[in-house]
Amino acid sequence: MPANETPTIPQGEPVPHWLALAEALTPALYETEQQPLRLVAAVADASHPLRYRMEDLGDVASLAQADLRAGDSFILDFGGHRTGYLSFLLGTSGREPDAPARLRLTFGEVPTDVAESFEPYTAWLSRAWLPDEVVNIDDLPQSVRLPRRYAFRYVKVEVIATSKEFGLRFEDIRAYAVTSAKSAAPTLPTAAPAWARRVDEVSIATLRDCLQTTFEDGPRRDRRLWVGDLRLQALVNYETYQQNDVVKRCLYLFAGLPRADGLVNACVYEKPRPTYANIVALDYAALYNATLAEYVAATGDIETGRDLWPVARRQLEILGQTVNESGLFVDPGDTWLFIDWNDSLHRDAAIQGVLIIAYRKTLELARIIGLEHEVPEYPEIILKMVSAARRAFFDAPSGLYLSGPDRQVSIASQSWMILAGVPESDAEAVTALRQVALHPGAIQATTPYLVHYYTEAMFACGMQQEALAQIQRYWGGMVAAGADTFWEAYSVEKPLLSPYGDIHVNSYCHAWSCTPAYFFRKCMSFEQEASGF
Amino acid sequence: MPANETPTIPQGEPVPHWLALAEALTPALYETEQQPLRLVAAVADASHPLRYRMEDLGDVASLAQADLRAGDSFILDFGGHRTGYLSFLLGTSGREPDAPARLRLTFGEVPTDVAESFEPYTAWLSRAWLPDEVVNIDDLPQSVRLPRRYAFRYVKVEVIATSKEFGLRFEDIRAYAVTSAKSAAPTLPTAAPAWARRVDEVSIATLRDCLQTTFEDGPRRDRRLWVGDLRLQALVNYETYQQNDVVKRCLYLFAGLPRADGLVNACVYEKPRPTYANIVALDYAALYNATLAEYVAATGDIETGRDLWPVARRQLEILGQTVNESGLFVDPGDTWLFIDWNDSLHRDAAIQGVLIIAYRKTLELARIIGLEHEVPEYPEIILKMVSAARRAFFDAPSGLYLSGPDRQVSIASQSWMILAGVPESDAEAVTALRQVALHPGAIQATTPYLVHYYTEAMFACGMQQEALAQIQRYWGGMVAAGADTFWEAYSVEKPLLSPYGDIHVNSYCHAWSCTPAYFFRKCMSFEQEASGF
Repeated sequence: MPANETPTIPQGEPVPHWLALAEALTPALYETEQQPLRLVAAVADASHPLRYRMEDLGDVASLAQADLRAGDSFILDFGGHRTGYLSFLLGTSGREPDAPARLRLTFGEVPTDVAESFEPYTAWLSRAWLPDEVVNIDDLPQSVRLPRRYAFRYVKVEVIATSKEFGLRFEDIRAYAVTSAKSAAPTLPTAAPAWARRVDEVSIATLRDCLQTTFEDGPRRDRRLWVGDLRLQALVNYETYQQNDVVKRCLYLFAGLPRADGLVNACVYEKPRPTYANIVALDYAALYNATLAEYVAATGDIETGRDLWPVARRQLEILGQTVNESGLFVDPGDTWLFIDWNDSLHRDAAIQGVLIIAYRKTLELARIIGLEHEVPEYPEIILKMVSAARRAFFDAPSGLYLSGPDRQVSIASQSWMILAGVPESDAEAVTALRQVALHPGAIQATTPYLVHYYTEAMFACGMQQEALAQIQRYWGGMVAAGADTFWEAYSVEKPLLSPYGDIHVNSYCHAWSCTPAYFFRKCMSFEQEASGF
Repeated sequence: MPANETPTIPQGEPVPHWLALAEALTPALYETEQQPLRLVAAVADASHPLRYRMEDLGDVASLAQADLRAGDSFILDFGGHRTGYLSFLLGTSGREPDAPARLRLTFGEVPTDVAESFEPYTAWLSRAWLPDEVVNIDDLPQSVRLPRRYAFRYVKVEVIATSKEFGLRFEDIRAYAVTSAKSAAPTLPTAAPAWARRVDEVSIATLRDCLQTTFEDGPRRDRRLWVGDLRLQALVNYETYQQNDVVKRCLYLFAGLPRADGLVNACVYEKPRPTYANIVALDYAALYNATLAEYVAATGDIETGRDLWPVARRQLEILGQTVNESGLFVDPGDTWLFIDWNDSLHRDAAIQGVLIIAYRKTLELARIIGLEHEVPEYPEIILKMVSAARRAFFDAPSGLYLSGPDRQVSIASQSWMILAGVPESDAEAVTALRQVALHPGAIQATTPYLVHYYTEAMFACGMQQEALAQIQRYWGGMVAAGADTFWEAYSVEKPLLSPYGDIHVNSYCHAWSCTPAYFFRKCMSFEQEASGF
């Protein structure tokens, strides 16, 4: 999630001992060698959500006997998504090669990446993010291992030039998938329906491919560590890979690189050295506390909880300044509020909910680490904010939470109010969610990030069947569209949605989409529910 | 010198112990770090032979403070030609970089390389030889060292993409020149005129940049080891760098990779492992013997002479089959005759000359290594071939050597007849050279390779002033056109000559052009001649 136009942030001094701790926690990366399964062709097909189907063109072994000349190309299918590297032995046919070879390689997470030209490129993100590469290879035959890391299932290889004397052959093509996920994650019980087991696999693959030396938001593009993405990945991680030291490392990276006043940045860069990304979002700073509290709860790592406790307290000291005397969030107007990619979304209700959650989670953390006495005011603040929220946003006649002067109805407002515990009963929460689903003008979710919280709100008020139906419709929709990992942006109605103006720069393996595996394990039990399907 | 359309050659078994000897003789490469001198702009200028002049745009240090965005570009001038590598520290301006950078780098030996687009590319050589490279650089700031070797004085850097958030800065730009020339070559005496001292410097720089782990024909393109180029480089080498073991290595590479019948290939590849290039030229096979004989004479390395003696004898056994009973070369029609890049050249007279020289040189070699008794027939063959040449080619009325049914007049025929000692006196040779210069239909030389032999023929018959005037006009012409190293192809009348149909794929540092340094030292004395200028 990159921010478009955001102001420069006055950053604080880095905290060397926390950054050193983060550095010491850098996990090893495990490499898995894989060979391409098949040669494929992308065939235009309007019935497929991404406009193409992949047709089998046969065994990759034929490339070792090929005679590929300028203009020739092929597409490799590795059978699934990976974050990693590519190598091949570039051999020749014909006479002894008397020139270098020039190739264009395009790495595709989905068929559109390798089926369509990237030109003209009209997105506002850097053209340098597009996963194509032109390489010149001397002294053939030559073993080639491309130095950059890519995110891919498909690799399109186009021969730009050989000489008249020789053609190209490709042998021993290998991908090297990397992840810091140590072992396979547990699978769902066989009682779970097939669709859920597949959605679960794809969720876990998404986490695996984002789980590098930090929790990257997307291995293809951005590759930053964002608080919002981290929280969701960490929740899935506790249920699957349990690479808890990577969560700890990420918590220290944020703590070690605060804004001048101590507010946690919305994202930081890990490479080439940890540094500020100069983006702050109020909701993400609040969710840092949730992430820390959940980490300590999941791991029992009291020491880290105590070490980072001042950071958590400081977040609420600063965020608390945005809450007025009656307990209501007042947008200071100078700081980014994320919630979702949607300019028309009114965010006050949602941010109110996030802040209440931050207080609740921080209080839980204080209890676990035995420092509740340091924040005796929190319970009262929470009560005051909940009742302020109710007064400000709840519309009893419709049963909906409305935000802003235009009394805007949105998925975001309902979800965060419910997650913050603002409704007085589950029934009230259920009504809000059912009403918003029926409301023709309701602002919908545009990212899997908000769909996660929407789904979590359903589980929170006992709408398990609806939550499952939503997972099936939304994440299952991506699977039906051919997803091997879950996407940065998706809409059932508009699968070609791009926040950037060009789907070729979308990320198709994106951290904030990986949470079905969490829901399946933490919010329900397939043993009990099996009969429900 | 690449061959265009040549048949596949039945190759012999490699000779492992000779290839092992060649391998053991691989020289170390010496690296010299250099910083760019200035930023320059290529300005169209019809008065310059290459159509551009370079204007100074100031200090390279400004790049460290720059804010270069997509579409921006600059040209670095390193002040002279080198074969080598490039590194730089790619920094950023603006906010923290949130994307990779995509750059196009173009390495220029001459201004046209960086002044003009390479598109549309129409030459018949591989597009992959063009010295441009598109690179994507992650995780900025980043130290970048491009892995490929280039031949360059200029580097054009074009920014293809950053993001809106940041621009690019370039710091610590360095070139790493590589050569196996151990030390500086001796300079000409100060008695030599300035133009000759400059031509000499450029000659020596040409040899230096071609002198790698073999004598490459051109560090930019082709990079092969050709017999014809090797002979000329070796002659310059004995007078300058004296890297005699590299000559020895090259002699063994050819000996280790013969054609099935034992004929030496016209060229071999050194990388990725020594192998056949599947091109044989009769004149190049003959010149292998000259190269070996000259090596032994220059170094006193009798052992190598004796070791490779069977190869030399075998060349003449095979080449001798192209000579008829009266001592005249008869083109077998199935083997390439190089002599010069010129399809309209009739080559019989020139090849006859080359073959006589091969016999003469091989006989000299036999004498030096004490094996004259093995070739008692050579003196008689030489006499027979010389008189056959005279009968067949010499036209007494005009004083010219004519070749072929159309009695073609050419620089090539006169030069090789003279070098072979066919004229009965220097005066006769001088007449031939003066007449060919005046002959309106004479086939001219198209390569520095043939201009070398033309010049050598002048020196051989005492035309020292004319030879010097030719060096000044031809190689001095390249210097006047801005050459830092001598070119693969040049004509005083047509400086934009390309054997390939596009000057952008010409090589501007080419082995066979480096011989003025040989002439200045071996064929004359500037102390004696100083008054002549």
